[in-house]
Amino acid sequence: MKDFPEDSVGIVTPQRIHFDQPLTLASGRVLPEYDLVVETYGQLNQQASNAILICHALSGHHHAAGYHHQDDKKPGWWDSAIGPGKAIDTNRFFVVSLNNLGGCHGSTGPNTLNPETGQPFGPDFPIVTVQDWVQSQARLADYLGIQQWAAVVGGSLGGMQALQWSIDFPDRLRHCVIIAAAPKLSTQNIAFNEVARQAITKDPQFHDGHYYAQQSVPKTGLMLARMVGHITYLSEDGMREKFGRELRSGKLSFDFNPQFEIETYLQYQGERFSTSFDANTYLLMTKALDYFDPAADYDNDLALALKNVQCQYFVASFTTDWRFSPERSREIVDALIEAGKKVTYTEIQAAHGHDAFLIPIPRYMEVFGAYMNRIANAVEKDNAR
Amino acid sequence: MKDFPEDSVGIVTPQRIHFDQPLTLASGRVLPEYDLVVETYGQLNQQASNAILICHALSGHHHAAGYHHQDDKKPGWWDSAIGPGKAIDTNRFFVVSLNNLGGCHGSTGPNTLNPETGQPFGPDFPIVTVQDWVQSQARLADYLGIQQWAAVVGGSLGGMQALQWSIDFPDRLRHCVIIAAAPKLSTQNIAFNEVARQAITKDPQFHDGHYYAQQSVPKTGLMLARMVGHITYLSEDGMREKFGRELRSGKLSFDFNPQFEIETYLQYQGERFSTSFDANTYLLMTKALDYFDPAADYDNDLALALKNVQCQYFVASFTTDWRFSPERSREIVDALIEAGKKVTYTEIQAAHGHDAFLIPIPRYMEVFGAYMNRIANAVEKDNAR
Repeated sequence: MKDFPEDSVGIVTPQRIHFDQPLTLASGRVLPEYDLVVETYGQLNQQASNAILICHALSGHHHAAGYHHQDDKKPGWWDSAIGPGKAIDTNRFFVVSLNNLGGCHGSTGPNTLNPETGQPFGPDFPIVTVQDWVQSQARLADYLGIQQWAAVVGGSLGGMQALQWSIDFPDRLRHCVIIAAAPKLSTQNIAFNEVARQAITKDPQFHDGHYYAQQSVPKTGLMLARMVGHITYLSEDGMREKFGRELRSGKLSFDFNPQFEIETYLQYQGERFSTSFDANTYLLMTKALDYFDPAADYDNDLALALKNVQCQYFVASFTTDWRFSPERSREIVDALIEAGKKVTYTEIQAAHGHDAFLIPIPRYMEVFGAYMNRIANAVEKDNAR
Repeated sequence: MKDFPEDSVGIVTPQRIHFDQPLTLASGRVLPEYDLVVETYGQLNQQASNAILICHALSGHHHAAGYHHQDDKKPGWWDSAIGPGKAIDTNRFFVVSLNNLGGCHGSTGPNTLNPETGQPFGPDFPIVTVQDWVQSQARLADYLGIQQWAAVVGGSLGGMQALQWSIDFPDRLRHCVIIAAAPKLSTQNIAFNEVARQAITKDPQFHDGHYYAQQSVPKTGLMLARMVGHITYLSEDGMREKFGRELRSGKLSFDFNPQFEIETYLQYQGERFSTSFDANTYLLMTKALDYFDPAADYDNDLALALKNVQCQYFVASFTTDWRFSPERSREIVDALIEAGKKVTYTEIQAAHGHDAFLIPIPRYMEVFGAYMNRIANAVEKDNAR
């Protein structure tokens, strides 16, 4: 039997939770019922005051930490930050991680059966927004008996959900942790998303989203989408350090086979993704990103949108992140300051670009861990009263 | 009859020049014969000392200035810089502009007939490099009776050709004008090119490059390639200023039709390109970019590669260009200084990103024009002796 590392949460089992109250979405459409697939780590205390919600990013899911079985080769996507003694210490916190609505890892989404038709939703699954996710997550909190999260935590698109939580349910979280995010996408961000969507929808195997029935998968489209995405996740410096202009065979081949190491890497990443992720979900997730703009209803004034928030904020960015650069995080920080709210901001030196938020960079884990430690201390002090 | 602007070269007619001496390429392959399509503007002086060679970029061609017929709506791609009284003053210079080997605008390339088979070359056209282009351009100079160019001028990939000229034929140019270029592609540049190539070659209409025979065109691949390219040509700031997050209909549509202005723009650009450019040529041009690395044969020491150059250099970059940033131009400048060569460098404030090199930004045209004016003055002073 394999020994997992001591600071691992060990084997975890996802659970499926059914919600039968209709959910009215931002689009006006209604989901009559839905499932969310969830993992939890650690123990909820008696006061239910030590719960942390983890929100996932574009291609993430509920499996954030630990292993699914003894022979699992890789732990969850944020195992470096979640576990006994880690930044999000599962000896002290009860951690909840879910697959969002519209996802492709078990929660109700395009690749699950529409109970009304008995067929997969496919392209008929409604476009969901960050607000819709937050609504569904609030119902999950109700289900779990959590009136108020100690913190809602997320990186990238996950950080946007955390920000939206603080606006939509000001009294249901004490801390909001926003890592490598932005208050809305830039035009360039939308442009890259649109390339990805065009690559998928123009793939002949896409069949207008009804590819499940055709027993096909728009692999090329997904591969291209992932390749473009991946370039934006890595920094230019990081790419140069990791791949440079190294040639696989040591010399130019004068043909169109991949020859620079970076070409091989991107193709591998793209192909792996194309067989493991659902194309309709990818489309939905990019739309949720494009649509996210909490200031839009407040005259494009983010400080005004944040007027009624009650929690404290931790905002982190990474120096070489050009997808959501430090400048974008500072927009959030500046708006919080303007609104008179409490915020801690850190800019982490890191060569890894946007991907840095998933990497256990020592300084990042120290600062993030110190903040989470303060939250845990407050929880335990309150309980000891 | 339409009146062209006074500072236009007016109506121009491309000429096709046949070369029947075999050309051995960097790959070792041999082109037994080939055609180059060329335009010229202005008059060659008696001493043949006022000739300027214009080298084109990735999707460029020979038609750099003027109009092809009375009803032509648009002039050549660099009409803003070439004409009577313009930065490249056709009252003083004899300007030569060609479509490079492998191009798709008339010069021998994948979409022209292979005399050995009577069929289009298609994917059998050899991969050509910047060095190969410079060799073919030197033969063009011979044909035109030009022993030494007053200047070789180019932007982006065109600037790389100018740089290569100065290394390969040190005594055949007096000035080298390198605008918005780099001494070699970065890993990220190669990565974007590889996405474009994958988009084209994975398009089912590509037929391994034999699409001419199939009466098909890999339109989707070309469209995606152009969309990705276009994002890298524009600056993030420029995109925001031009398109922002404006919605076509004023509100979110909650579907996958293009709704942000930037989406419509990119799709339009991509679709237009997909019907006007040859896919095999696009593949070749991106490979020429990837392969360009004049320092590679000199221990990756660019100063060493430039040891024997004899001309003077003008190098220009644009502040918001992130495809070939000012930093990349300064690598060229620094190597020239280290090698003890004469170089003038200017960094132009411009919001337009890489595209700026095609735009008549006043400060850019003034500085560039002043440099070209100095060259013309020297030519005329020499001739008056």
